[in-house]
Amino acid sequence: MTDWGKEAAARLEAIAAISEPGPGVTRLPYTQEHRRALELLESWMLEAGLSVTLDAAGTLVGRLDGPEGAGTFYLGSHQDSVHHGGAFDGIMGVVLSILSLEKLRAEGGTLPFSVEVLAFADEEGVRFPTALLGSRALAGTADTAVLDMADAEGTTLRDALRAFGCDPDELGMLARPRAGALGFLETHIEQGPVLETQGQALAAVSTICGIERHAVTLTGATGHAGTLPMEGRRDALVGAAALVTEVNRLGRETSDLRATVGALDVSPNVVNAVPGHVRMTAEFRSPRDKVREAAGQTLQRFAVQKAERMGLDVAVERTYAQPAQPCDAALTEVLLGAIQEGGGAGCLLPSGATHDASAMADLCPVVMLFVRCRNGVSHVPEEHVDPADLGRAVETLSAFLRRLQPAGPSRPASS
Amino acid sequence: MTDWGKEAAARLEAIAAISEPGPGVTRLPYTQEHRRALELLESWMLEAGLSVTLDAAGTLVGRLDGPEGAGTFYLGSHQDSVHHGGAFDGIMGVVLSILSLEKLRAEGGTLPFSVEVLAFADEEGVRFPTALLGSRALAGTADTAVLDMADAEGTTLRDALRAFGCDPDELGMLARPRAGALGFLETHIEQGPVLETQGQALAAVSTICGIERHAVTLTGATGHAGTLPMEGRRDALVGAAALVTEVNRLGRETSDLRATVGALDVSPNVVNAVPGHVRMTAEFRSPRDKVREAAGQTLQRFAVQKAERMGLDVAVERTYAQPAQPCDAALTEVLLGAIQEGGGAGCLLPSGATHDASAMADLCPVVMLFVRCRNGVSHVPEEHVDPADLGRAVETLSAFLRRLQPAGPSRPASS
Repeated sequence: MTDWGKEAAARLEAIAAISEPGPGVTRLPYTQEHRRALELLESWMLEAGLSVTLDAAGTLVGRLDGPEGAGTFYLGSHQDSVHHGGAFDGIMGVVLSILSLEKLRAEGGTLPFSVEVLAFADEEGVRFPTALLGSRALAGTADTAVLDMADAEGTTLRDALRAFGCDPDELGMLARPRAGALGFLETHIEQGPVLETQGQALAAVSTICGIERHAVTLTGATGHAGTLPMEGRRDALVGAAALVTEVNRLGRETSDLRATVGALDVSPNVVNAVPGHVRMTAEFRSPRDKVREAAGQTLQRFAVQKAERMGLDVAVERTYAQPAQPCDAALTEVLLGAIQEGGGAGCLLPSGATHDASAMADLCPVVMLFVRCRNGVSHVPEEHVDPADLGRAVETLSAFLRRLQPAGPSRPASS
Repeated sequence: MTDWGKEAAARLEAIAAISEPGPGVTRLPYTQEHRRALELLESWMLEAGLSVTLDAAGTLVGRLDGPEGAGTFYLGSHQDSVHHGGAFDGIMGVVLSILSLEKLRAEGGTLPFSVEVLAFADEEGVRFPTALLGSRALAGTADTAVLDMADAEGTTLRDALRAFGCDPDELGMLARPRAGALGFLETHIEQGPVLETQGQALAAVSTICGIERHAVTLTGATGHAGTLPMEGRRDALVGAAALVTEVNRLGRETSDLRATVGALDVSPNVVNAVPGHVRMTAEFRSPRDKVREAAGQTLQRFAVQKAERMGLDVAVERTYAQPAQPCDAALTEVLLGAIQEGGGAGCLLPSGATHDASAMADLCPVVMLFVRCRNGVSHVPEEHVDPADLGRAVETLSAFLRRLQPAGPSRPASS
């Protein structure tokens, strides 16, 4: 009998070897590495009995046809990594989805609907200043203006797609009909330490957190650190320190909120000059939009008041906002049942990170399976999932598909 | 009758034109601009009746011989600027010193001692990672190891000196005999707003503040800002913010202390990652060494305690310490008298910045004249001194020389 965990680990190791040189895994979209990774995925899809195509966004699609007229359920995640990332983020969701279908086939089961495993080209947004092209294209929300965006070498996304064998002009034609789209189940590492702390291998995602980002600029006056008296100093970094402290306090004292100042740049940034200028970011994430929005407003008020008291000029701009995306309740019920079938507690976690599921939510109901990862780390070479947990995930995915009884107009007539 | 203020302003404007392209003045040591500035200074020194030489450190020396066997009193400052600096910092002290001798000569006065006006090549330390070579060479404290230091283009200080017509091997022979060194009077812009606030054009410097610098490194753990719960975060920037706040509090609540975090670098410094690492500086300056040292110790204790409470690793290293350098009491008395002769209040200020006088103090007693500068700013193109204040400074300098009755073994026999 196949040890699905060992098999998954071996495949993930094989595909992790397809990387730019350097520590960990660097596999960017529409590159030689992407091409070679898809060759491997295609061979595994074929083994699992899927028919394989590459769509115009560079998404590898492995399809298992169900009964005539039945709808399609989508599985998968993204093939790409960050620079010097790990062997699991994204690609694990593709490999486990394929294995779950291989397992079902080995057991002789058939499904009352079609299934497609999707290996999206680019979720991380590392090569081009945009991301989620593949999932947005399927959902009909891709903005073709991004085709003119260029990578660090000046290659546009349009040219990169063409060189990869994709026709960028077909991007607008990839949208799937909503009627036949039964749902999307994305499998992903947790990227956090909660499952490890709880002693659980798997969880269903309740909600993909909403995000908002603010750009804060504080301007005071620079001067010689030796000659400028303390009184009357307009030190932008002292103001920024108060904001960093406040953002952290907000995160710690508000339930369901994560609050982070991730980037901060000081000018002139030399040992003997009073900082005259600071640019910084603040990011808030929450499964509850009202909580997130209130935090953003608190920061804006605090920054303006603090700056006034300290004689600083301040500009605070909300540069990005994305509402929370709840996972589909019915599909999540089925997933929790599948997790419990495998002996798991079946807990629910919010996802702090954005995923392809966020974009797929514009097409169909979405549901997510989180897999425990060691020390909660992701986007680093140390990223790791235990083979036993990979096995549990494969079993849960096939149990999910077995349990799924699609409702609505696309539900197969027979059963 | 010559308007010495107007004359000084015209000369400073002429020499400010000798600059690399770009805003303000950029005149680095041992460059074409340095060469051309010295040609101008030499012509003015000759006009003032001085004999002119260039020493092995690139210091232009204008000498007025006094009676046989009399000692030498030194005047001057540095010719170099920072990148995009102003027209007054450093060079003003050279130009006003020459004019004060020209004024004395115009009035037919003679001095019972020799005088040398010194135009040091490099006080700012912008081109090479060292400074004060000229004043240290005269004091016999120059470290010849710095000759191997290279500028951004890879040119060593040794090669730069040679190309400038100086013999670096003679550097060790520049030390002046202490017996004949009567004192050094450096004239410099205040680089701060105190004189402007007090409505005074001139002040004598009481003490050149001592300085100490600390390098602080805080290490926590980076992670995804969306997936890492607030509890258990080890955010290095949150720790750094507490240190910035504490350093500023120390400066504000301790008299005679200036305390600054000038530089702070965050890693990985992206909007959606918890900062895992921060490097920052802290600088303390005080005319009282005990005050400065206590502040440094308080910071070190605070950093260690704070880091422990926040689960961060911390390294704090005092990277630099320079004791306070009191100006000579007797020479300062003479200078205060000269300031009052011109109608000034004759106030005393500490100097927060280091000067060539700091190095010259190893050779002889030092004294400093501060001149009011607009808005207290320096090291920027907006640096400005009112021509009337330049005139007051010329008169004060010549009054100082007239009033000076050198004491000690090198005092001229007659008088």
